[in-house]
Amino acid sequence: MQLGMIGLGKMGANMTKRLLAGGHHIIVTDLNPDAIAAATRDGASGAQSVADMVQQMAVPRAIWVMVPSGKPTEETITRLMSMLSPGDLVIDGGNSNYKDSVRRGAMLAEKGLHFVDAGTSGGVWGLKEGYSLMVGGSAEAIALIRPILETLAPAPDQGWGHVGHVGAGHFTKMIHNGIEYGLMQAYAEGFEILRAKQEFDLDLHQIAEIWRFGSVVRSWLLDLTANALEADQELSDIKGWVADSGEGRWTVQEAIDQSVPAPVITLSLMARFTSRQDESYAAKLLAAMRNQFGGHAVKRE
Amino acid sequence: MQLGMIGLGKMGANMTKRLLAGGHHIIVTDLNPDAIAAATRDGASGAQSVADMVQQMAVPRAIWVMVPSGKPTEETITRLMSMLSPGDLVIDGGNSNYKDSVRRGAMLAEKGLHFVDAGTSGGVWGLKEGYSLMVGGSAEAIALIRPILETLAPAPDQGWGHVGHVGAGHFTKMIHNGIEYGLMQAYAEGFEILRAKQEFDLDLHQIAEIWRFGSVVRSWLLDLTANALEADQELSDIKGWVADSGEGRWTVQEAIDQSVPAPVITLSLMARFTSRQDESYAAKLLAAMRNQFGGHAVKRE
Repeated sequence: MQLGMIGLGKMGANMTKRLLAGGHHIIVTDLNPDAIAAATRDGASGAQSVADMVQQMAVPRAIWVMVPSGKPTEETITRLMSMLSPGDLVIDGGNSNYKDSVRRGAMLAEKGLHFVDAGTSGGVWGLKEGYSLMVGGSAEAIALIRPILETLAPAPDQGWGHVGHVGAGHFTKMIHNGIEYGLMQAYAEGFEILRAKQEFDLDLHQIAEIWRFGSVVRSWLLDLTANALEADQELSDIKGWVADSGEGRWTVQEAIDQSVPAPVITLSLMARFTSRQDESYAAKLLAAMRNQFGGHAVKRE
Repeated sequence: MQLGMIGLGKMGANMTKRLLAGGHHIIVTDLNPDAIAAATRDGASGAQSVADMVQQMAVPRAIWVMVPSGKPTEETITRLMSMLSPGDLVIDGGNSNYKDSVRRGAMLAEKGLHFVDAGTSGGVWGLKEGYSLMVGGSAEAIALIRPILETLAPAPDQGWGHVGHVGAGHFTKMIHNGIEYGLMQAYAEGFEILRAKQEFDLDLHQIAEIWRFGSVVRSWLLDLTANALEADQELSDIKGWVADSGEGRWTVQEAIDQSVPAPVITLSLMARFTSRQDESYAAKLLAAMRNQFGGHAVKRE
């Protein structure tokens, strides 16, 4: 089918490739003309702007927005809303906050436009292995883009699903990422204890490889961990500084809003904050307190 | 090759089946005569006691001990030590504390006996899918039992490895289980938040199935979670009471001994303790304190 793709970053560019390989007609646009040129070499039709894309497309249009969450997504969807015709459909495949998606869905519905929030997982491996897609929207809207979802997913009947009305897709993806924080932190802590055990001089890459087959902790994240440990298990060229892109924070906020205990996911987020501190003021204060009550030595700056 | 198997519980019985299917000659014993009878029907040779097993075997003997950790393992290995001949080999495939394994290895070495500590993962699925084996011991000892390890593993060159000297196998398995606690807790918390979100009325089984393919959180534990959620996602017939069998505690103790921060693994262990409390005394005290300082209402028993 015909699909518009706005945003040719790592995710959008690879998804376009996978859709082209699946025989779809993809009209692409991006702020970067080089990205458009690259996609057209792969067989996409290039559009110089969102307006140009909308003009090139047959109605009813289906347009996948794959730009950073927040302001870029908001602006893109607002612009689309002013250009599209009733019956057209907008998909937000980015990591938008589900509350924004609920709001945008209602906003588009007022203009007679369909909206689908498609939580998309799979990272840079999705091109080859397919993307996991958690999709929210009306049954009518999902039916319109089903051929696209079946191509993006690992298999037509695997790895994607219509999880509920608008917002449910991004909500599910948010929790997916929260779980991801916890899984990553559990592996990371375990490997740090292994590394600390000098008595056994363990080969962390070997252990990751052993665990990949038959063990209870085997997973795709473990496969990636084994890759990461292969060349240099000291990870000498990687700083222990971990970013977060919002979904972990939103998961913790949701746990708070629902009064659901989520200690491990919360602490995994906090561990990332700790990783970004050059020095902990709290640790300075702890040392100062020990000095105050017990005269314990402090290390001086 | 010929192998003695002491202990035909869930693990030992299935491992015996896998070894028999691999063409090995297995001599089995267990405290339960029915378990011996079942294994002999599968093609094993039955022994009525450890002494009977030792008598039936050709030297050098290799005997796999697959009994509960702690006293049963200690008694079995002590008994074996008094019966075996120099050059014989004992493998502990259970979840022994690695410090016990180091001690037992030294004890057996004094009698000229080899000792291998084989951390074994895979649970009840190991029969079909193979076991992940983290093996500690001398190169000579590992060479003696290599055919057994290659059969038990998912493939001769996958899922097992010689990770270091005696103790390293059980140490690695201990950390494996510590990681497992964290992974399980992360999934559990995420699914609880999903379930709490009544606005979307999510199908938790469907979401687990979606995530199994192409998502970043796909794993074997997620496959099992999907199984568990299939029939009744309310899990009505399962009490929220979670046991622990020691390896999580030892992992946390090791983190403390090494001064390695492992907050998520630690908290995952604590979450299991919480699950086993009918009521939290700490929570009672918190409620009492709020009442003391702020006159806040308390719920009365």
